[in-house]
Amino acid sequence: MYPGCRAALFVAACLAFLALAPAVFADEGMWLFNKPPTEYLKKQYGFDAAKQWLDHVQKSSVRFNNGGSGSFVSPDGLVMTNHHIGADAIQKIDDDNKAAGKETHYMRDGFCARTPQEEIKTLDLELNVLMDIKDVTERVNAAVKSDMKPAEAAGARRAVMAEIEQESLNATGLRSDVVTLYQGGVYNLYLYKKYTDVRLVFAPEEQAAFFGGDPDNFEYPRFDMDICFFRAYEDGKPVHPENYLKWSKNGVKDGELVFVSGHPGGTERMNTVASLDELRDVETPFTLQRLFRTEVTLGTFAGRSAENARVAREDFFSIQNSRKAYIGRMAALLDPALMGRKKGAEQALRSAAAKGDKLKSAADAWDRIAQIEKTRAALIRRYTLLENPRYTTGRSIAAFPTPYFSIARFLVRAAQELPKKSPDRLREFRDSALDELKLQLFSDAKLSDDYEIVKLTDGLTFLVETLGYDDPLVQKVLDGKTPHDRAYEAISGTQLRNVDFRKKLYDGGEQALQEAKDPMIALAAVVDPAAREVRKRMETEVDEPRRTAYAEIAKAKFAVEGTNTYPDATFTLRLSFGVVKGYEENGKHVPFETTFEGLYQRSAQNNDKPPFDLPKRWVDNKSKLDLRTPLNFICTADIIGGNSGSPVVNRDAELVGIIFDGNIQSLALDFAYSEEQARAVSVCSQGIVEALRKVYDADKLADEITGRP
Amino acid sequence: MYPGCRAALFVAACLAFLALAPAVFADEGMWLFNKPPTEYLKKQYGFDAAKQWLDHVQKSSVRFNNGGSGSFVSPDGLVMTNHHIGADAIQKIDDDNKAAGKETHYMRDGFCARTPQEEIKTLDLELNVLMDIKDVTERVNAAVKSDMKPAEAAGARRAVMAEIEQESLNATGLRSDVVTLYQGGVYNLYLYKKYTDVRLVFAPEEQAAFFGGDPDNFEYPRFDMDICFFRAYEDGKPVHPENYLKWSKNGVKDGELVFVSGHPGGTERMNTVASLDELRDVETPFTLQRLFRTEVTLGTFAGRSAENARVAREDFFSIQNSRKAYIGRMAALLDPALMGRKKGAEQALRSAAAKGDKLKSAADAWDRIAQIEKTRAALIRRYTLLENPRYTTGRSIAAFPTPYFSIARFLVRAAQELPKKSPDRLREFRDSALDELKLQLFSDAKLSDDYEIVKLTDGLTFLVETLGYDDPLVQKVLDGKTPHDRAYEAISGTQLRNVDFRKKLYDGGEQALQEAKDPMIALAAVVDPAAREVRKRMETEVDEPRRTAYAEIAKAKFAVEGTNTYPDATFTLRLSFGVVKGYEENGKHVPFETTFEGLYQRSAQNNDKPPFDLPKRWVDNKSKLDLRTPLNFICTADIIGGNSGSPVVNRDAELVGIIFDGNIQSLALDFAYSEEQARAVSVCSQGIVEALRKVYDADKLADEITGRP
Repeated sequence: MYPGCRAALFVAACLAFLALAPAVFADEGMWLFNKPPTEYLKKQYGFDAAKQWLDHVQKSSVRFNNGGSGSFVSPDGLVMTNHHIGADAIQKIDDDNKAAGKETHYMRDGFCARTPQEEIKTLDLELNVLMDIKDVTERVNAAVKSDMKPAEAAGARRAVMAEIEQESLNATGLRSDVVTLYQGGVYNLYLYKKYTDVRLVFAPEEQAAFFGGDPDNFEYPRFDMDICFFRAYEDGKPVHPENYLKWSKNGVKDGELVFVSGHPGGTERMNTVASLDELRDVETPFTLQRLFRTEVTLGTFAGRSAENARVAREDFFSIQNSRKAYIGRMAALLDPALMGRKKGAEQALRSAAAKGDKLKSAADAWDRIAQIEKTRAALIRRYTLLENPRYTTGRSIAAFPTPYFSIARFLVRAAQELPKKSPDRLREFRDSALDELKLQLFSDAKLSDDYEIVKLTDGLTFLVETLGYDDPLVQKVLDGKTPHDRAYEAISGTQLRNVDFRKKLYDGGEQALQEAKDPMIALAAVVDPAAREVRKRMETEVDEPRRTAYAEIAKAKFAVEGTNTYPDATFTLRLSFGVVKGYEENGKHVPFETTFEGLYQRSAQNNDKPPFDLPKRWVDNKSKLDLRTPLNFICTADIIGGNSGSPVVNRDAELVGIIFDGNIQSLALDFAYSEEQARAVSVCSQGIVEALRKVYDADKLADEITGRP
Repeated sequence: MYPGCRAALFVAACLAFLALAPAVFADEGMWLFNKPPTEYLKKQYGFDAAKQWLDHVQKSSVRFNNGGSGSFVSPDGLVMTNHHIGADAIQKIDDDNKAAGKETHYMRDGFCARTPQEEIKTLDLELNVLMDIKDVTERVNAAVKSDMKPAEAAGARRAVMAEIEQESLNATGLRSDVVTLYQGGVYNLYLYKKYTDVRLVFAPEEQAAFFGGDPDNFEYPRFDMDICFFRAYEDGKPVHPENYLKWSKNGVKDGELVFVSGHPGGTERMNTVASLDELRDVETPFTLQRLFRTEVTLGTFAGRSAENARVAREDFFSIQNSRKAYIGRMAALLDPALMGRKKGAEQALRSAAAKGDKLKSAADAWDRIAQIEKTRAALIRRYTLLENPRYTTGRSIAAFPTPYFSIARFLVRAAQELPKKSPDRLREFRDSALDELKLQLFSDAKLSDDYEIVKLTDGLTFLVETLGYDDPLVQKVLDGKTPHDRAYEAISGTQLRNVDFRKKLYDGGEQALQEAKDPMIALAAVVDPAAREVRKRMETEVDEPRRTAYAEIAKAKFAVEGTNTYPDATFTLRLSFGVVKGYEENGKHVPFETTFEGLYQRSAQNNDKPPFDLPKRWVDNKSKLDLRTPLNFICTADIIGGNSGSPVVNRDAELVGIIFDGNIQSLALDFAYSEEQARAVSVCSQGIVEALRKVYDADKLADEITGRP
């Protein structure tokens, strides 16, 4: 499933965030709307990507700032996205209603507003529509003088970008972001219309949206109604956007050219071969090892009772999703064809860099990266175990995967960091970050101690297995006890479950920590020096020199290829394209589309048991449906996490579908495009209308999107 | 769950099979019936272990040769064991009936013979009852002269043992086995009455026997009716054994002394600290790593469809069971208290060995073992991946976990081995083993190619991750392809699914193999030289010198401790004892018994969903039951895999329960006894009768075991 759930992947990959376009390959590319692949589309498909067409599709597209995409689909401000992108907002409505004493189950049972009055305001959704793009490269570059030192240059660059953004905001009232493209080859100013009054109009049952659950996640064939509808409001009234996508009555045909307009979150396509080798040999296997273990541990805990299952549900699904994603990544890293293309492209660029006069400074960057990757390989296990940045969620795959530990560490570090000046602190303690930090620190989320003990026992065991029993830190952490006894002692004995206690320690600093004699605080204090040490080494010996070397390669690449290619994904609007097309797998042909009939068959073949059970409405209304109606389809468009909810349009800019996932082979697209088996998976426009009318009795909504009066 | 499912554990541990008693600790011990802990029982419990009492319990005990224990429970030859020990036989009855066109579901729905005529003959159950023990140590030792070389001595020992067995068989007609105890300190001749006409009398539904499934496996509290009844026949008539256990009406009380008479399969209690360190640091983490991965891979495959779930079911459960067992082992290895006792005992023995004149030759054995363990640690991953002896089942956790590969390797090796003389061949190809080998090789079990591809892809990926992508063997195995493509190619292209093809290759030898151009044969041929190499190193550099060093330690230990202690488990009859007793866990008290009420509660709390669903009979007959009746209970007796089905008796030799599992903490008993939390889990005698009468309407059977006329 594409994000939010892919957050895990993004964070783990964040140290390798630089990326750049490889030599473009067939239907490859996450193209800028102001640099579309016009020639290729003309030549290959006889399609004229006219300014007007592009402008219309661009302004019909919507960014969901929680990590997804969407589009306007009616003149009255109706926005469609995936259910799994809207799910956060839907769940919060249920939670709020419960807190207010009028329990609802919109996540489980779905929701349909029959009148405008029934549309429900969401809490914190922000939608952005890209209205204009301006090139500000010259102005940004002019602010950076050639005699500046790197830190000074970075400061000057940040300053001029902020200046441009502020000026633009003042002048236009539009959200204004300077976007760094081609790793600094180009700076563009993106101007967005912003909507913050966003109301829920329609959601299917979660079980219809995510039919097949984890087993079918990242797989194809697929049978998911992964959609929901919101409406954008301004001044208490529905907006009437100038641009919205017309609905296609006919859906897609096999072999048809389609376009995807959305916000791919991030790719790592500039990784050198040495970096990919490190991922293949060390980091990905290690991450998988931890994910497999955690999945089994959480699954076993969840299996013990219905209550356990409830407690572990969210973590468990997140781990399963990450595991599938990493299996896909590993398969890509072990694909000789993909790696062969990577090697070829790298060799070509290195040759060009060795020749070009201005590029010679970059020539040894590849070798430096290879050296740095060795250091990274040596540090990554310890770094992940002790200093994984995902501590805050407690869903971390590190050695201390309990929120109690995250809180304890925050407190231990706050006592040391806060007395310093803001710029001298660890980054997450800078003044501007403190509010968010305190929000997490003082959150009153209830924890199940049994669950936390199971997780921490497992984490400590993994720590021992990875670092070795005789490692001095391991000995200090275990303190002469078994992993279970140590976890039990720290969790059953901590007072950190009490938010007031946390506040007292936060305010009281070092002395309060000492006096508290809290076993979880003590554990965090034992770990902290080692954690800080490995973090410092990672930052100074790996991250910083790696960033420098990649920037040099990026510059060389930009000098050679210019803007005739697409820049790496940056969660900004991109145009992808491809053809509707099945593929071959294990000697069998996987057809390009599925139907409602297939949905019912898949459920029946699995005895209607979870996760293949159908919501009651779907069972009751089966006879009304035309079972031949297409439900999901696939195409070769180049997408990645962040594209969830992207509209799929045809040559006439009609909406034919909505992206909601990629198959397992598409996970290779992090590193390189491939069209052999990698496919983007969409819900079909026809299926949506059929379900709205016949399953949900939502004729009014169906009329609105299809433009029936 | 104790065996058969613990087979995985036994094999993995087979290289460390030597074991010896540690300094005896409280209720520790798997005692010989001819060397019972008489004094301790007298002193500690005021119990007189009289010859008559021992003789009666011994001759009431039954060994199930498929890996479990049982007992006679009526004068008419009724034998009780665990459902999970009888399950093989029950499944075969279902399979046979299905093949004969009259489908039955005794595994799923249970079975009850209402008349003697309805009792169903099983196919290959063999029951043994130990009738007598004779000491033959002197005769065995006399046959081995002090000037013999090791190989010659081993041959002479084997010869005299065979001679003794043959003589005894001729003289008594009883199965006669010379058993090596105390690692060769004592040789005893065991004489067994053998029963091969064994008929099924009663079995509950598998869901009642294994209520709670994997989540509750190796856990406590527990709610399982893990029993079944067979009847031993001779000459077509029920046997009337002189000894059988009377049924206790009152079950057990908290704190009561109880005895377990059964056949513990194997322990590793003589492991030196260096051997335990290797298990903790290398072997167990590696095994767990593979088990976690395999469990997730199989679980994901199974989750995709009901048919997939059926195909993977047996493997999946076996992996889950092994995973739980290894987690328990790892926890034991990380227990400083247990390891501290081990260190203390080792130090004491080493001191004694250093002093005693005759023991000096053993003095450096510990250091030699420490060296050997380093070699073992360096080889074990590669050995496990390439040469795991469990290939044959296809349930191997090695790199090629498909029966196709096992078959291919057998054929490749047969072509090389069979032309040699029998003693020169690899052990599994010696003449006496060929029949069994061919049975496996020509088995017509149907395989699901999709499943085999998933498993082999996973195995190959694990191979790459473990040995490294650049390992020359890995490169040869992958042959320029992805793990999936390689697995797909080998499995979809092989003709080995055809048994006649296998026979042709077996008969045709090297030339036929060459001509076949079969991709799976080719894969096996690529792997074989490397597999043979690591096997040879393991055998010569580890197994042989390790065996020698352990034999010396065993001799020293025997010299110091003599037969005042118990020998390591050998799947021969032993007497354990302990008290009925709860324990503390995570600050909560776990009570010693569970009741029928608890069973219904556990099911309800989990919404009656699998694996917590109750069979229909249990739902329908709930109101008839006295819900306060005890169902399962725990005691501190020293048991291990092989004890499944063992009768638990009180001071009056009345049957109060039947062992069916240990809790997770009891898995430490492989290495050392502990009574803090480790517990043996039994079904209670009262619960059995209550269920027979009120759930199963099996009053006749209940009357027979309780002795009601």
